[in-house]
Amino acid sequence: MSLLDDLRGAIGAGHVLTGEDCAAWSRDWTGQYSWTPLCVARPADTGEVSAVLRLAHAARCPVVPVSGMTGLTGGASAEGAVMLSLDRMTAIREIRAPARLAVVEAGVVLEQLHAAAAEQGLAFPMTFGAKGSARIGGMLATNAGGSNVLRHGNTRDLVLGVEAVLADGRVVDLMSELHKNNAGYDLRHLLIGSEGTLGVITAAVLKLVPRPRAHATAMVATATLTEALALLNRLQDMTGGAVEAFEYMPGAYMRRYATLHPEVQLPLGQDHAVNLLVELGATAPRDATPDETGAVPIVSYLEEVLADLLEEGAVQDAVVAQTDAQRRAFWALRESAAEVTLSRKPVLLNDVAVPVDRVGAFLERAEAAIRAVDPGAESTAVSHLGDGNIHFGVWPSEAGIARKEALTEAVEDVVSEMRGSFSAEHGIGLSKLGSMARRKDPVALEMMRAVKSALDPRDILNPGKLVP
Amino acid sequence: MSLLDDLRGAIGAGHVLTGEDCAAWSRDWTGQYSWTPLCVARPADTGEVSAVLRLAHAARCPVVPVSGMTGLTGGASAEGAVMLSLDRMTAIREIRAPARLAVVEAGVVLEQLHAAAAEQGLAFPMTFGAKGSARIGGMLATNAGGSNVLRHGNTRDLVLGVEAVLADGRVVDLMSELHKNNAGYDLRHLLIGSEGTLGVITAAVLKLVPRPRAHATAMVATATLTEALALLNRLQDMTGGAVEAFEYMPGAYMRRYATLHPEVQLPLGQDHAVNLLVELGATAPRDATPDETGAVPIVSYLEEVLADLLEEGAVQDAVVAQTDAQRRAFWALRESAAEVTLSRKPVLLNDVAVPVDRVGAFLERAEAAIRAVDPGAESTAVSHLGDGNIHFGVWPSEAGIARKEALTEAVEDVVSEMRGSFSAEHGIGLSKLGSMARRKDPVALEMMRAVKSALDPRDILNPGKLVP
Repeated sequence: MSLLDDLRGAIGAGHVLTGEDCAAWSRDWTGQYSWTPLCVARPADTGEVSAVLRLAHAARCPVVPVSGMTGLTGGASAEGAVMLSLDRMTAIREIRAPARLAVVEAGVVLEQLHAAAAEQGLAFPMTFGAKGSARIGGMLATNAGGSNVLRHGNTRDLVLGVEAVLADGRVVDLMSELHKNNAGYDLRHLLIGSEGTLGVITAAVLKLVPRPRAHATAMVATATLTEALALLNRLQDMTGGAVEAFEYMPGAYMRRYATLHPEVQLPLGQDHAVNLLVELGATAPRDATPDETGAVPIVSYLEEVLADLLEEGAVQDAVVAQTDAQRRAFWALRESAAEVTLSRKPVLLNDVAVPVDRVGAFLERAEAAIRAVDPGAESTAVSHLGDGNIHFGVWPSEAGIARKEALTEAVEDVVSEMRGSFSAEHGIGLSKLGSMARRKDPVALEMMRAVKSALDPRDILNPGKLVP
Repeated sequence: MSLLDDLRGAIGAGHVLTGEDCAAWSRDWTGQYSWTPLCVARPADTGEVSAVLRLAHAARCPVVPVSGMTGLTGGASAEGAVMLSLDRMTAIREIRAPARLAVVEAGVVLEQLHAAAAEQGLAFPMTFGAKGSARIGGMLATNAGGSNVLRHGNTRDLVLGVEAVLADGRVVDLMSELHKNNAGYDLRHLLIGSEGTLGVITAAVLKLVPRPRAHATAMVATATLTEALALLNRLQDMTGGAVEAFEYMPGAYMRRYATLHPEVQLPLGQDHAVNLLVELGATAPRDATPDETGAVPIVSYLEEVLADLLEEGAVQDAVVAQTDAQRRAFWALRESAAEVTLSRKPVLLNDVAVPVDRVGAFLERAEAAIRAVDPGAESTAVSHLGDGNIHFGVWPSEAGIARKEALTEAVEDVVSEMRGSFSAEHGIGLSKLGSMARRKDPVALEMMRAVKSALDPRDILNPGKLVP
């Protein structure tokens, strides 16, 4: 019998797609990658995932686990492979509000979980642009970042336990609901972020957090990034860590935005070097309940703090949103990053991270480094300043277009110098394999290869990805 | 040449101790374990650690890494082995207050780091009884828990990067200072908590946090643990997560304490079933600066909240500490746990964790389970209720003393039933190897063995520990 027949026998013929039926699974939504899979297998539960892997393992056939397919690095590319789609495993098995946890299957769409948590008055704080189609499995496999990392951490920080199926079909049960557990190696963290190369995550126990009842949002200008970081630390102290966003937009970004949107009145004009979008989240009624004048205490508080800082000279200018419409307008500035970045093409995108106190130095040096390669190059940047993540785009000059590789290398040289990461939140997949080979500590690469061979000796799990 | 001669050549004869000079390194401070090492090697830096491992690896001689030797599970036991002591690597290489991080060597004593962080107005929040002698290396190797986990997490949650030396002497540089870094498997988390079986951690980048300027501390009684958990969640919401301690003492504990300390007036008497020590930490001046009457806002706030809850009936009784002396007296109740537990001997100690909403059910069932084995047995418990960690002591009856193993098994049966952990914060070492073999998911054990063989194929790193 062929592998396809075996798979049909194991999970039902209707759940093993081939030929035309695989169309939706045959390309990347970024348009960068396309492929022809052997088939798409859509198991209904962990037992069926195990059966698929057992069969593929015996046949030595590559398996590419996928869920929402919203990745940016070609990690789902699956030429000739069995695509193992978790999109039928969509049960939210349990939400236990008193314990503030959710038990979910890998196919749950992030937005579904947001809604289910909200029904219980809680939140699952991880969120990002693709939330309407990204699924929990992919989010864990790539340790997704996003907009709320400053307050609640990366995906891995929100995971108490996982269940996974190994290359040969064995199921490992690490579905801990515990906050303290020192019984052996932390295999949970090994699986999270391994991009499907060590095992297929089928379910997880996730932490939930209180839902903010009110937000205070401001646009703030400081003279330098050093002052911006001091402001962040001060706001963190003053609010006991309630800062949910601290986003940096350079002056050049604001000017480009103004050119694209001449109809918009920028809250702080376009002349400040350092523009910050600052947002606090309040869970306490005392901070969130409007007083008799209708003022929300957390908003009044942010106004007072910023007024003091203005007087001290620690801040150059500041506007606190007074209405939800104003808050949305502030966010629209930041959320236009893709539009601003793509307003000139081609653009070379870099998702890098450096220590939080070196963002300014990075931008200065990276700017100089690309100019050294291509004197006509320009850059565009926005940064989650609170976690050191910088989305750094390079617009090469006409002449520089042929030197794309050299420009990327120049940026990565600066990242390496600052002990930063060439992949902050998007992962490696296929598209960053070259950087991984060049930039990762060589002994760390040897360790990764040793672990990969130990857990997947036939190299069938997402082969050729992540590990160069 | 012998291994000893080689080691002397590599790190200096004065730093390779043998015979009598090893006395201080030849036993456990608990008195449970003693051994005769081949020698104690005390390298000065990472290069020397690498040299020691290269030599031991070539000679296929076991190496037991040690730092403060304050472990509770026999993890430092080293019969015939090279003890690799990191106690000379005590540099705090750097504290960068704006980035809120410290770069430290493995031999730094925890209390030293506390002091250095405090000098910069910051805190390293991990703390526990042995802080005056425990060192960073051991703390990371065991993923130490402690008193502040509720607010700031376990040791691993406070680590941005590590440097380690592998079994054969290769040095792996994972000294990231980043909050976002998705470049490959998370080898940092694999090394943390591996109890020296996968590599020797030589340095780390640690997170620092704002130092609390004021505390509000209360003793609170609730009718049930369900109400206690509801109180915790409510206080977390109301304070934006500022609860630093939420410690549970059962009525039986208070009565025993009262017997041992008849001179002490218990703040809530001894008749409540659920006694809680609750502490909030405030970093914001608005919460911490005394008003014109001398009242500290965070304290007044806790008083108001508890008054409301008393009125609602959600809380049975409560006293908020008005002075530092009173705060210390509340803590003295909790810190007498060892005294209370050891006030009757023999006692079987269990350091277990269950989901936070199952602590009450655990105590009930564990009580029944030990009675089924030994009808005369009694138990004593205290719990970090906020993280589900329970220190559960069993006092067997005269007749039950012979049935120690069966009593421990009975407790672990209940832990397993509740999907808890038989080792919450103390780790495995030697003393929990049996539990590990019996209780850990068998596929997880296979994965651990595969990883261990891949990274230490000669099995020289702390052999016979952690992995059964």
